[in-house]
Amino acid sequence: MSVYLHDIPLPDAQSRFEQALKEAGLGGILAVETIALDEQAVGRVLAKPIWALLSSPNYHASAMDGYALRAADIAWAMPTQPVFLEVGRQAVYVDTGDPLPDWANAVIPIEQVESLEETGEPAGDPRHGAHIRLRTALPPWSHVRPMGEDIVATQLVLPAGQVLRPVDLGAIAASGHAAIEVSCRPRVAVIPTGAELVPPGREVNAGDIIEYNSIVLAGQILQWGGLPERYPITADDFAQIKQIVQRAADENDLVLLNAGSSAGSEDFSARAVQELGQLLVHGVAVRPGHPVILGMVRRTQSNKIVPIIGVPGYPVSAALTGEIFVEPLLARWLGRTPQEPEEVTALLSRKVTSPPGDDDYLRVVAGKVGDRLLAAPLTRGAGVITSLVRADGIAILPRGVQGVEAGAEVRVRLYRPLKDLERTIFAIGSHDMTLDLLAQYLAERGRRLVSANVGSQGGLVALRRKEAHLAGSHLLDPQTGEYNTRYIRQYLPETPVRLVTWVGREQGLLVQRHNPKGIHSLVDLGRDGVVFINRQRGAGTRVLLDYHLQQLGILPEKIAGYDQEEYTHLAVAAAVASGRADCGLGVTAAAQALGLDFVPLFHERYDLVIPCEYVQSDLLAPLFDIMGTEEFRQAVMALPGYDVSEMGKVVLECG
Amino acid sequence: MSVYLHDIPLPDAQSRFEQALKEAGLGGILAVETIALDEQAVGRVLAKPIWALLSSPNYHASAMDGYALRAADIAWAMPTQPVFLEVGRQAVYVDTGDPLPDWANAVIPIEQVESLEETGEPAGDPRHGAHIRLRTALPPWSHVRPMGEDIVATQLVLPAGQVLRPVDLGAIAASGHAAIEVSCRPRVAVIPTGAELVPPGREVNAGDIIEYNSIVLAGQILQWGGLPERYPITADDFAQIKQIVQRAADENDLVLLNAGSSAGSEDFSARAVQELGQLLVHGVAVRPGHPVILGMVRRTQSNKIVPIIGVPGYPVSAALTGEIFVEPLLARWLGRTPQEPEEVTALLSRKVTSPPGDDDYLRVVAGKVGDRLLAAPLTRGAGVITSLVRADGIAILPRGVQGVEAGAEVRVRLYRPLKDLERTIFAIGSHDMTLDLLAQYLAERGRRLVSANVGSQGGLVALRRKEAHLAGSHLLDPQTGEYNTRYIRQYLPETPVRLVTWVGREQGLLVQRHNPKGIHSLVDLGRDGVVFINRQRGAGTRVLLDYHLQQLGILPEKIAGYDQEEYTHLAVAAAVASGRADCGLGVTAAAQALGLDFVPLFHERYDLVIPCEYVQSDLLAPLFDIMGTEEFRQAVMALPGYDVSEMGKVVLECG
Repeated sequence: MSVYLHDIPLPDAQSRFEQALKEAGLGGILAVETIALDEQAVGRVLAKPIWALLSSPNYHASAMDGYALRAADIAWAMPTQPVFLEVGRQAVYVDTGDPLPDWANAVIPIEQVESLEETGEPAGDPRHGAHIRLRTALPPWSHVRPMGEDIVATQLVLPAGQVLRPVDLGAIAASGHAAIEVSCRPRVAVIPTGAELVPPGREVNAGDIIEYNSIVLAGQILQWGGLPERYPITADDFAQIKQIVQRAADENDLVLLNAGSSAGSEDFSARAVQELGQLLVHGVAVRPGHPVILGMVRRTQSNKIVPIIGVPGYPVSAALTGEIFVEPLLARWLGRTPQEPEEVTALLSRKVTSPPGDDDYLRVVAGKVGDRLLAAPLTRGAGVITSLVRADGIAILPRGVQGVEAGAEVRVRLYRPLKDLERTIFAIGSHDMTLDLLAQYLAERGRRLVSANVGSQGGLVALRRKEAHLAGSHLLDPQTGEYNTRYIRQYLPETPVRLVTWVGREQGLLVQRHNPKGIHSLVDLGRDGVVFINRQRGAGTRVLLDYHLQQLGILPEKIAGYDQEEYTHLAVAAAVASGRADCGLGVTAAAQALGLDFVPLFHERYDLVIPCEYVQSDLLAPLFDIMGTEEFRQAVMALPGYDVSEMGKVVLECG
Repeated sequence: MSVYLHDIPLPDAQSRFEQALKEAGLGGILAVETIALDEQAVGRVLAKPIWALLSSPNYHASAMDGYALRAADIAWAMPTQPVFLEVGRQAVYVDTGDPLPDWANAVIPIEQVESLEETGEPAGDPRHGAHIRLRTALPPWSHVRPMGEDIVATQLVLPAGQVLRPVDLGAIAASGHAAIEVSCRPRVAVIPTGAELVPPGREVNAGDIIEYNSIVLAGQILQWGGLPERYPITADDFAQIKQIVQRAADENDLVLLNAGSSAGSEDFSARAVQELGQLLVHGVAVRPGHPVILGMVRRTQSNKIVPIIGVPGYPVSAALTGEIFVEPLLARWLGRTPQEPEEVTALLSRKVTSPPGDDDYLRVVAGKVGDRLLAAPLTRGAGVITSLVRADGIAILPRGVQGVEAGAEVRVRLYRPLKDLERTIFAIGSHDMTLDLLAQYLAERGRRLVSANVGSQGGLVALRRKEAHLAGSHLLDPQTGEYNTRYIRQYLPETPVRLVTWVGREQGLLVQRHNPKGIHSLVDLGRDGVVFINRQRGAGTRVLLDYHLQQLGILPEKIAGYDQEEYTHLAVAAAVASGRADCGLGVTAAAQALGLDFVPLFHERYDLVIPCEYVQSDLLAPLFDIMGTEEFRQAVMALPGYDVSEMGKVVLECG
């Protein structure tokens, strides 16, 4: 029944593909072309090594403005015993870069020369006397750039396979070349298929999916040195798919067939490959990405073979299929080494499970907290393209691994420079929309704010585990009406922190526009036909809800949807906006963002909890700066339901 | 007299330039344009943040192929107590990605469904029964991608300043955009000036310099997101320079005026800037690079101001001026953060001195030896473009630093991934041309061979200091006629090594073609009118020479040129080829490379000395592989004067 029954391990899929490429004569550079040596050659790959045709300099060149002379002629010159040379016969003026006369073997800089008229009087401009007077000796070849100083004719300047950088072009030119042989850029067809697809800019109705995989794949191909061509969206029709695949194979070096995500369209892909050539692999044990197809298609007009890759429909799977299969193939055809991202070892911030049969590509955000580099897993949904956008890297959990514990080491392939991770502020805890605003302000000051939303209590736990630089928290103590302090004592008995007020904000019920169900207080949650959407356990908003439900004597089991949890205010708002729920507890701004109505219920304080060891750090300095600026306070006030009157107030201070 | 009298510190130059840019309204993004959302947008910079217009998914979507249903309807299903649903009313078949009917809140995967005809008999294809039978319950929203799972309408998708990657384009499309606002690419003119310049491909005579700075600068501009335009080479003529600068300023956003390296042409540049606008800076205390000019030029037809950078003529200075001044300016105009190379701390392999008034940009090669990252300085000549090509990074010795001792820590800005440094084999010692061949073979096996040529004894010293993975050595013991063993005992008493024979090779005199001076043995070196070129102290070739001179009773002071030292065989050959010397001692291959004649004198053994700690390392494994291949031996044999009969023979083995 399953369409993934044929999944084979990734290395097996790769070697089967590689073998077929070799047999088809497609195992190396596809073609070579000669191009002019100019700036457009940046990024191209040398198909042949560059051997120097000329030396550089190509003659003995003066390295200074001065006089060329024979070192022997001034061997006895001393401050007290100057030597006189006749200009023209014994010394010749040279500018930097000028060739030395045959008989000269040194240059004396103009600053060390006294120029004399015939009469022996100073001549003014030292370049125009008839004689010069020198008071210092020089070793032979002083201030001379000898022929071949930079490049010796016949030497290897650059090896084949070099991806050309601007300075490389300089060295190639210096060695006497005006044209270079580079590998041709492979042409790659990208074919999106699926009746549900609409191109960007078209109206989107329920059931429509905006087609963007072809843009992502084409962008990858460009970046990796290929020439992409995007084909029109093709319906789920076997005859049409077969026809366009054949056309694409006739016109390109590689075909990427991006199946719709449904089983049906994928079957069409596999059948089309089988009928037009050879199906090599159908299903690879990688997650996300399973339904990858690898095959070979024959051109109509020749015996030439063109490889085809059936790319899965889910966007994360599609992009990772590009990285896993397309990049190494382009590298091979271009004659360069495949790209290898930097790798680091990081500690996983929470436990993950992994299908033991798959190579599991886990997207993570990463940052340095104290001495430790931490990796926090992002959502695993293959449909969540933003998980790739937000990812700092990929942790690969190999086949055979069933899961990784929190705190265990994982290797992370980085998508961004290591340097960025060192200026990352990890905020784990309660979510508030002003943190997104803060992220923008921090970015302008060279800091990157990465927030993970695990709720207020989760944030305090993360601080205890030294997994964050700060936590947002709004935990009400029902006994005292105080915020956060009791919980800090409870969760962080050994971790001295500064508690600083961030914002005051309104919490209330997010309801559909015009409040069709007439929801006005928590009491209405127990009504028949009212579906609630909850926040996760440990969230301050959840604590607030549970406290008031208890006060009102409402049993959670009487609330439909109480067990449905979301992790952010915006996700709660989205659930209400989409009709999944009738109401949820959250902040005003979330309601306004999605055009919902808002029933205000409570005013609460949202604080930042910052371990003392980071309070004085360079890393967090911009945070305290920003809190103090009027500009930022105004920006927060512009969001509905916020109050900044206590922003920056220190509630608990470090020893 | 000096033209560098006005040198000001780099930070002062930068802030003066920045101030003038701000005053001219050129401190931020130059202009914004709207472009289509397609693969060509990769690398462009967002001028405005992207807020989501749509949610993604835009509806509750099935995450599997299966039946959409109400979770409540199957709440009591168990393996022993199946539930029957009527297709159409209670359950609807959905493909992955299809929208759920309004009334449904879960999807049961097709694999868990038994399909039945009206009769209650199994229906074959589970999609086509009239009823379905289920034996498992599901929580609500199982196998559903809820609306907004990826992106919630109104949320921030990407901030302004984002340099667009392929996945970013996907997220932008998913959020409902079909076009984006990006910063315009700044147009940059590059003007080469100097009568001595010839474009690549033209015949090169003495005094001619191949003009390639404009290609390097244009390549940098392209790489950094600008649109370069190279202007024709302009002679050192003030009127012409002024005219072309004005034209370039009228047509571009930035002008780079690449002066000839002579003082005269630089003066023209400064004067032209002064007459066409304002000269801000003339001379910056950086090395190499001093004579940088910064200024502003006014357009003819408007009041618009165009910045101009006078770029020094020496190629290393020109390229570094690009990095120091052009890249940050383009970053500012594009609205992105300036590029910041990864930095590492490395230990300097040898002492360097530095002018205390300058920020000194030292090119280094770098690699990891044992636990330590080492940086070996490359030649400092500003004319040596290959020093930038070979450089793994730049160590900046700041103003106030007069020098750095060997073994001291320096910060290195990397030009290549840190990963490359970890697969670098550092060979320090005697130079042999077969090492270049080896480098090519190692590259194919994922290793990078970096060799520093300090002579055989220098190599042994480097091993003692743990600064290399191996050393090439050909040190003859005059007493015993043995190679290397005595020297290893002397220099490496505490370092166990494997000594393995690499090649046998002929040493002899490299002389000009047809041997015009009739040089046939070392005795001829003492003759009048014969100029010798020597190898540096510590080189095996030098030891060989000194030994035989002593045997023959020839005093070094009788040999003209004995005190002129080169560091490689090829450099000795170049000195002879250029006429700087009449002969030098070296290997056959060096003579042949430059078309010299060769007078064979000695046959010697060239060995590799490898500390035992690296003998079994992964890093060096490919080296031992290569030694054993017939292909490599053949390639060495193809070089003249080499013999591989003993290649790989172990002379000394590790305990």
